[in-house]
Formats: sequence, C-alpha cells, structure tokens
Amino acid sequence: MHKLRVNSARFKADFDTLAQIGKTEDGGVDRPALSRPHLEARRWLKERIEDDGFQFRVDGAGNHFAVLVCAYEDAPALLMGSHLDSVTKGGRFDGALGLLAALEVLRIVKENTISLPVNLEAVDFTDEEGTLVGLLGSSALAGSLTAKALAEPRGGRQNLLEGLELAGLNQAGLLNARRESKTMAGYLELHIEQGPRLFDESIDIGVVTGIVGISSQKISFKGEANHAGTTPMEIRRDAAQGASAFTLAVREIVLERFPGCVANVGNMQFSPGAYNIIPGEAAVSLELRAPDDQSFQKLEKELSEQAETIAAKNSLELKIEPLHKHSPVQLDNSIQDKFARAAQRLGLSCRRLHSGAGHDAQSMSAVCPSGMVFIPSRYGISHSPFEFSEWDDCLNGANVLLQTALSYKNESVLGK
Amino acid sequence: MHKLRVNSARFKADFDTLAQIGKTEDGGVDRPALSRPHLEARRWLKERIEDDGFQFRVDGAGNHFAVLVCAYEDAPALLMGSHLDSVTKGGRFDGALGLLAALEVLRIVKENTISLPVNLEAVDFTDEEGTLVGLLGSSALAGSLTAKALAEPRGGRQNLLEGLELAGLNQAGLLNARRESKTMAGYLELHIEQGPRLFDESIDIGVVTGIVGISSQKISFKGEANHAGTTPMEIRRDAAQGASAFTLAVREIVLERFPGCVANVGNMQFSPGAYNIIPGEAAVSLELRAPDDQSFQKLEKELSEQAETIAAKNSLELKIEPLHKHSPVQLDNSIQDKFARAAQRLGLSCRRLHSGAGHDAQSMSAVCPSGMVFIPSRYGISHSPFEFSEWDDCLNGANVLLQTALSYKNESVLGK
Repeated sequence: MHKLRVNSARFKADFDTLAQIGKTEDGGVDRPALSRPHLEARRWLKERIEDDGFQFRVDGAGNHFAVLVCAYEDAPALLMGSHLDSVTKGGRFDGALGLLAALEVLRIVKENTISLPVNLEAVDFTDEEGTLVGLLGSSALAGSLTAKALAEPRGGRQNLLEGLELAGLNQAGLLNARRESKTMAGYLELHIEQGPRLFDESIDIGVVTGIVGISSQKISFKGEANHAGTTPMEIRRDAAQGASAFTLAVREIVLERFPGCVANVGNMQFSPGAYNIIPGEAAVSLELRAPDDQSFQKLEKELSEQAETIAAKNSLELKIEPLHKHSPVQLDNSIQDKFARAAQRLGLSCRRLHSGAGHDAQSMSAVCPSGMVFIPSRYGISHSPFEFSEWDDCLNGANVLLQTALSYKNESVLGK
Repeated sequence: MHKLRVNSARFKADFDTLAQIGKTEDGGVDRPALSRPHLEARRWLKERIEDDGFQFRVDGAGNHFAVLVCAYEDAPALLMGSHLDSVTKGGRFDGALGLLAALEVLRIVKENTISLPVNLEAVDFTDEEGTLVGLLGSSALAGSLTAKALAEPRGGRQNLLEGLELAGLNQAGLLNARRESKTMAGYLELHIEQGPRLFDESIDIGVVTGIVGISSQKISFKGEANHAGTTPMEIRRDAAQGASAFTLAVREIVLERFPGCVANVGNMQFSPGAYNIIPGEAAVSLELRAPDDQSFQKLEKELSEQAETIAAKNSLELKIEPLHKHSPVQLDNSIQDKFARAAQRLGLSCRRLHSGAGHDAQSMSAVCPSGMVFIPSRYGISHSPFEFSEWDDCLNGANVLLQTALSYKNESVLGK
C-alpha cells in the first residue's frame, strides 16, 4: 500500500480541464462563488464524480461531495477537499488542487478495492474565498454559520441573494446544513502555501500546525474639516495626521514586538477628500493576524491603545469598529504526525509551519480532527493569475494526502 | 465727500434677497457656477443693475458688468467686484458681499453725481470658486485662460459643456474675452477673510498685501500588492507606509522651516484598497501654498525631495504629477495705501495681511493695479453654511471700498 501513488496523467488532465472553466487571458481563473463560471465548474465536477462511479451528494449549503464507501454504510467519513471557487481574477491552483487531489485519492482507493475503517469523501466547499460570506460552506456544515452573517454578508446582501438563486440554494438550507460530528472521522486538505517559506527554503511539504486568527477593524480618526489655505497649521485638527501616524506605528509594533504576527492597513478613506480641505475624517482599514490566542489578543489590544494615544496627541476623536474576527486554530497533532510520516516515507523534505491565510479547516477543526498540508508556491504569489506551483510539487502533495488517508487503515476511528 | 457712506438698509435688503437664491436649509447658499441657482442670481443682478439705471454688459466669459460713466465715455474704468457663484453648499457672504458693496458704491457716486477721472464698473466674475475652471471669468478677461484649461477642466468636461450651454456661453467666447489693459484703471475687491486672523485679533479691516501661490500635485507611491496574511512584514513593499510617512513629513517640514506657508494632504487613494491586500499603490493629494515666490519654489522642491527620500527608504517607486499652479501675487502698493488711509479716515483698526485663499485679483493683477480688502469672518469659517460676518463689519468694508473709490478723484489715472 505504501507503493500506491496518484495517477499523474489523469490528475493533470483534470487540473488542466478545470483551469479552462472561467479562465482569464493571463492564465488565471475568475470563478467567484456562485458566479456562472463557478457553477459551471461544479457541474463539471458532478459529471466527473458520477463518471467515476462515486455517490454524488449536495448539502443545504451547496457543498458538493463524492462519497466512497470503503468501510460500511454510515461509517464515519474521512473528508478531504478544498474548493472550486476563486477570488476575482485569481489563480488556477488555489482550491482546485486540493479538491482534485482528494478525488484522485478516492479513485486510487476504489481502483485498488482497499477497505478502510472510514469511508472517504471528497468535498468542494462553497465560497471558501468569502466573495459573499467568509468560509460559507464549511461554517454551515460545522454549524457555526449565523443568520447575522447572511444578513450582513461582506459581499453585499443583493449579491448573496442573486448567487443563491442562481445556484438553487436558500438561506434556510444554509442555516440547516449542520452535519453531526460523529459522522466525520476527520478533515484533510492539501493547498498551495500562499506564502514564500517553502519556496524560499526549497522544502517539499509543509505540515500546517495552525491557522492564524484574523481580526479586521475600521478605525476612524475624526478631526475638523477646514480651509486648507487659511487655517494655520498650528491649530489644525487634521485626521490625515492621525491615520498616517497610526499606519506607521502598526508596522513598527508588529516588527518590534510580535514575531509571527502580521498587520495591514489596506485602505484609507478621507472625508471630504479634496485637495483644498483639511481632512475632517480618515477611516483606516486595519487587518491583523496572529498564530495563537495570546498574541492575537495582545496585538489587538496594543494597536487599539496606540490608536488612542495617537488620536489624543493629534486632538482627534477615535472610533474603532470591529468588523470580522476568526480566532486562531491549532490543527490536530496526530494528523500533523501522519502527514509528516507520509512525507518521510515518500522521501520528501518537510517542515511544520502555520498558515497565514484562512481556510475551511478553521471551521472544520471545531467539529472533527483536521489537518492541512502545503506545497511550495512560486515566490509565494497567490490570489493572482501568476500563482504557480511545479507539477512535481502538486503530485508530491497529492501523494502525501493519499498516503495519509491510507494510514487510517490500521486505526480504530470514531467521530470526535 | 469724506462723509459719504453706503446705504445700509438698501445694501442689507439686497444682501438678504440674494441670500434667498439657492438658499440651503442651514442658512447657506448652493450656487455652483453656471448652475440654475447661479444663473437665477445673475438674472436678479441684471434687473437690479437696469433698475438702478446703470449700463448692463456681459462679456464672452459671462462676466456681468454694471457701468457708471462718471468721467467720460471710454475713460479707463475702475473695476470693483467679486462673484455670485458659491462652492457647493457654501455661505452667503463669500463673493456676494463684495459684489453688492461694489454696486452700492456705484449708486452712491451716481446719487451724488460725483465726477471722477475714471468710470466705475461693478463686475460679477464667472466661476471664481472653480467649480468648473478655477478663476474662469477673471482669467478669460485677463487673457490668461488657455484652451487646455477648458479641455481638462477640474470640474469635468461634460459639466463644463452643460453649464456653458445652460448659460448661453461657448468656448470661443471664453477664449476671446480678453480685455485691453488700457481700458482698466484698477481692480478693487472686498471679501470676507476666510481665515481667523482679523476675527481673533478684533481688527476691523485687513489690507491684503498679496495672494498665496497654490500648487497641487498627485504624488503616487508604488509598491507591490500582495497577500496581507502570508507575505512577511520584512519583505513588503507597502505603498501605505510611503504615503503615511510623507503625510507626517509634509506637516513637520512646513511647521519647522516654512512660516507663513501651509500644506495639506487632502486625500489618499489606495489600490487595490482591500483589508487583506497590501496596498500596491497609494496616491496622495498634496496642496501647498506660499506667500512669495522664493518660499513657494523652495517648499515645492523640499517636499518633492522628501517624497523621493521616503520612496527610496521604503523600496517604492515615486510619481509626481503637477496638477495646478498659481504663482504668488503681490497686490498693488498704492492701492494698499489707499485702503489703509480710507480705513483710518473711517476710524477703523487695520492691519496688512496676505490672503491664503485664491481670488480673482490674482488674474486681474496681471493686467491692472489690483487690491483687496478683508473684513473679519467669525472663527474664520468659510466655504460653509456657517460662514458669518457681523453686518457692521460688512458695512465697514463697503465704506472702505467707497472711500477708496472716491480717493481716485484727485488722481490722474491711466490704464496700466
């Protein structure tokens, strides 16, 4: 069984066919969740699943499943997967790779009539990228999707309703898509790294220890709009000064005292925003990420305090609006070890690292033991048409996934 | 003649009637150039001019004139005026005060059948505020309006064309509106200060020594857009860092080394502008103002060099686009003295100051001796419905204008 490998030619043919759906001129794909190209990719996937002789299933959140019974009916399932949706003008590896690798694992197990103590499922989660609602499909399945998230989707309420209608989904279905923990033995996901560490260090396989917590906030500095020619510099209450000082401080604080964390000021909006008017208000879009709860909370607190200090120093008012928050998640230790052993058996170099990007494993880890494995991504570029991984690396990742699934053979597995 | 004063009741009645045209709920006026309310105000002005028995004239730039021949036909004219247009949701004093005071001067001279060595004209310039094109009417009259300014108007080409059509004007008329210098003996303008100096110091009259130069530039810092979760802080080329450092530096440089100058970062635009993407580009809207040529050029140079230094330090590319530039203007010394003597005769306190805001006298000073007189504006608020000046101050300003016009009595006047 240790000799089994995925079928490279078949895997590659599927990968290339899928990359045609919603393809962009520069070699990327444009398949935002529930858009027509995304739904076309899902129809293609359904055909592949049925052609391969797997059971096909869709839940209330639109998540697509290929099911292979290799234990017994109603045995806990080991889920493997990722997603077919992309960010707007994204790349062809993000999501697609992990899903097709999962399907390939099911095929190998089926072709070799291997029996396992778990059934296998390949899952395509809805809207992992959060075009409409962040981690929509996996949070619905995990039972953590709220009515509020659907009422105030980050992609806009109208877009969500239109997408659901196009896909034949509805809100009741989403809110009732929760799946019993005991039906799931675990969740495994292969993904490109979306960062440069494996690529820079020429390491084949990354075993993910955890996924960063992400907090986004709108931080508004409020001063007084006034005539930019006739108001003396000394008496201005210039919101731009507060926003700018904060932007510099965010970087300094993270670099000096929060190794492993990152923060970003991704946008600023000035009001009224004219050349000849002192900005009365400046709203800063802040996002921070931390690998563990302690630094997550500490960083959030320090940045808030810094914003207060800067506002006071510049005679500005301050308003902090929390927008979105996912706490850091630690991934399952025994799955990490399984991935590492599989990589070792395959003769691949391997390191443990945490994920700086969000993934469906964040939702899944609350309901079953979950793990992720990364392969190198050239220059760490992702969410871009120029995202690229060598095919050998893709194969390595798929084979680690296969060997990890096969390693369940000798375990007694129960749902969490 | 030193005893003559404007008619307060008539002046106030006109002021209040005019403030009704385009009035806003909060006590301001909304009369952007060539909008319907602006053109309604001009129709009202035309009626007043004709009712008062003055000659009425419109030039190719739409500038409106009341002409009182008090020397002889074709004698050089002493122009006095301001403008009926307002900024969007502006105040009722800016422009209106100076124009109605000029009309009042003509009335007093006519009622008292005073002969002068100059004819008198009250002028309402088109688009002083630059809703469509900065100082449109006065630059057309002075011959400094360019076809380029009409081709790329700051208010948008379509808006300019629509406004011209509504007003019955055209581009050929604007570009041919130049008036011969020799027909103009001078230009005098009464205006609210638009800054707090006279108000703070409780001084009745400000004699304007010059008008600041204004330079506006779009300064773009260009880095690399990337994933805000997975790109290490150390290797980011974050355009927000450059824009923010520059914004702080602009203020510091002006405060430390350029007394009398001001600068403003009125807007920033980040691209792509998402929470989870490092800004690849940040465009900063910079405006700087200086009272004299030397500091104007030096400040512009130092800020450009500072932008270069900051870009280099942050591994960013830099692009500086000049958008708009008016050099500083020194106003006529002998007119300054006339204003000061008139204030003294009226028992009013007086100081000299420069104007931090732009005015039509900038264009006019190139073609005839020009001067401006300011009255206090409460808290220095302007371009706002809350702009307010005491009526006594308005009267003082109008009487200084009247006495200054009358002081031409004993001069031999030639066009410049």
